[in-house]
Amino acid sequence: MLILGLDPGYARAGWGIVRQEKNSLQPIAFGCLETRAKLSHPERLQKLQAELQNIIAKYRPDELAVEELFFFKNLKTALQVAESRGVILATAFACHLPVHEFTPLQVKQAITSYGRADKNQIQQMVKLILGMKTIIQPDDAADAMAIAITCAHSIVKKY
Amino acid sequence: MLILGLDPGYARAGWGIVRQEKNSLQPIAFGCLETRAKLSHPERLQKLQAELQNIIAKYRPDELAVEELFFFKNLKTALQVAESRGVILATAFACHLPVHEFTPLQVKQAITSYGRADKNQIQQMVKLILGMKTIIQPDDAADAMAIAITCAHSIVKKY
Repeated sequence: MLILGLDPGYARAGWGIVRQEKNSLQPIAFGCLETRAKLSHPERLQKLQAELQNIIAKYRPDELAVEELFFFKNLKTALQVAESRGVILATAFACHLPVHEFTPLQVKQAITSYGRADKNQIQQMVKLILGMKTIIQPDDAADAMAIAITCAHSIVKKY
Repeated sequence: MLILGLDPGYARAGWGIVRQEKNSLQPIAFGCLETRAKLSHPERLQKLQAELQNIIAKYRPDELAVEELFFFKNLKTALQVAESRGVILATAFACHLPVHEFTPLQVKQAITSYGRADKNQIQQMVKLILGMKTIIQPDDAADAMAIAITCAHSIVKKY
């Protein structure tokens, strides 16, 4: 089973795909969807949708996992992230992908068993869990992989 | 020129289309996009996108006007409205529609010259401006028409 994890964002949205087979998890691909700041706001959102559709068409994941918007410092940024999340969720449904949502705390606890893990700890644990030689960069892609791993663990628990 | 106004919302999004010819404004159509509460969150957002695409395909508006999210009482609701706005903006760009955004205050001032107008005053002024015999219902559709009228006024001023 292939799980696509997404760390929703406006200027940058991390993505990562893991393959789950019995108890093993393998990294398949990861990256970051970026939209240029000089584009208009509607165009950036549409580009995010188009790039996500491309990833789904290329890798054909079975499940999509996305982070819930939970904590934020800046309201304007939070509303932009919510707009991106809306586009991601509508696209997932249009592509017939079951959607799983996790809070940042659920992701940190699933990955590090510790709710206050920082970016670097998340990157290190994602590397260990997936048996990779180097950490995943940028942070956004590592976060997306962490969300995909959280989803894999939660699906295993259900069955 | 046809202007499609949208009052973004999650469970209900009002829409209204006005035709602007020189200094006259005519109502063309209006309504409310509603999604059933029993559907999943991603499905409701995708349905909003599909229904908006249908309206655009049917009426072929030249411009799209949408309200900015500005004041709100409940953060969870605000984030859901932002998710709907994200879907609306991405769809508008995909359909090649120029997007205009207005704050609630700009809309109230354009319609009633008074920033604290209530729902009923907005409905009465929309009826008068468009020369209609009865007020537009529901509120969401009247609000969407008010946004389209605001856009018509702002475009006239520019040229």
